[in-house]
Amino acid sequence: MDSHIAPVAPNHAYRLLNHGPTVLVSARHDGVDNVMAAAWACALDFQPPKLTVVLDKATKTRALVEASGRFAIQIPTAAQLQLTHAVGSRSLAEHPDKLREAGVTLFDVDGHDLPFVAGCSGWLACRLIPEPHNQQAYDLFVGEVVGAWSDTRVFRDGRWYFETADPALRSLHYIAGGKFYAIGEALNADTGEADAA
Amino acid sequence: MDSHIAPVAPNHAYRLLNHGPTVLVSARHDGVDNVMAAAWACALDFQPPKLTVVLDKATKTRALVEASGRFAIQIPTAAQLQLTHAVGSRSLAEHPDKLREAGVTLFDVDGHDLPFVAGCSGWLACRLIPEPHNQQAYDLFVGEVVGAWSDTRVFRDGRWYFETADPALRSLHYIAGGKFYAIGEALNADTGEADAA
Repeated sequence: MDSHIAPVAPNHAYRLLNHGPTVLVSARHDGVDNVMAAAWACALDFQPPKLTVVLDKATKTRALVEASGRFAIQIPTAAQLQLTHAVGSRSLAEHPDKLREAGVTLFDVDGHDLPFVAGCSGWLACRLIPEPHNQQAYDLFVGEVVGAWSDTRVFRDGRWYFETADPALRSLHYIAGGKFYAIGEALNADTGEADAA
Repeated sequence: MDSHIAPVAPNHAYRLLNHGPTVLVSARHDGVDNVMAAAWACALDFQPPKLTVVLDKATKTRALVEASGRFAIQIPTAAQLQLTHAVGSRSLAEHPDKLREAGVTLFDVDGHDLPFVAGCSGWLACRLIPEPHNQQAYDLFVGEVVGAWSDTRVFRDGRWYFETADPALRSLHYIAGGKFYAIGEALNADTGEADAA
């Protein structure tokens, strides 16, 4: 693992997703690894941390998640704009060499049998909480976060430092048709009160 | 309704949420209106458009949603930073004058018995799709979008114009402790291919 990467405390894991970034979903089963982009991922609980992600029935990644009961969610950076769009636009079914073509480098983390995407700013290892009705009716998957890590150059001590980090480390926020926005300037509400979530 | 506001086509409604903004959730029942902030809202389907939102059991807004079967999701702007944090930090239960204190102005839309928050950049009128297990186990609510509108100065023809609109109209993306980011610069992936969602 890269020397910039460090674990994120479980009670801070939701903050990797709280600002609504587009994510990369990866999964592994029976020797097959895949990665897809998903704009529809969202925090669901603080502690233990949980999240939701929408996985269309046409995606190969969904089949790997259903078969293995595990997936990883990672936060790609502005430097990974093309990679993110590429893995979100092509299916492994039609493009067996999709990951190499998109420039994806995978790495392993001890104790987690999952393919993690190198170069992201945050990683969440998840255990699928089976919810057959949600999966069938809404393509909605619930995961419990069982491990979290960040690139400490942009997320450390439970918070993002987008305003001082290299702009290449900013998160991506997808709209449609290849159009994304990067996260922008920090704005601080004038109060000592707690979470608005 | 303000002259800048126009309907959003149903098949474009998901794009109001696709980039992961923090939202305002409002609801009305039996003469009571309330508004809260929520960072955990997410698109769920394209057509008919659906979305999810997490509503804690302690919130008064949740009780109004459960009683009326309706809610509105709206996208607050950078100009509404203080308002957004205020309605997310105080409960109507302890602060009966919460909306006035936070500077919230409500308006009505014909055919929708909901309180809409003035000054936002987008509005989604939703019908609750009852899912008792999700609501009880995860505080997770599913809504079908039955009406959508935008401030055409920043969202029109199915797309955001954050890069050319007044920066005061940028969306807010909450982290924790009063800290938000505004959405930032536009980044366009180099391909003609379709959605990564």
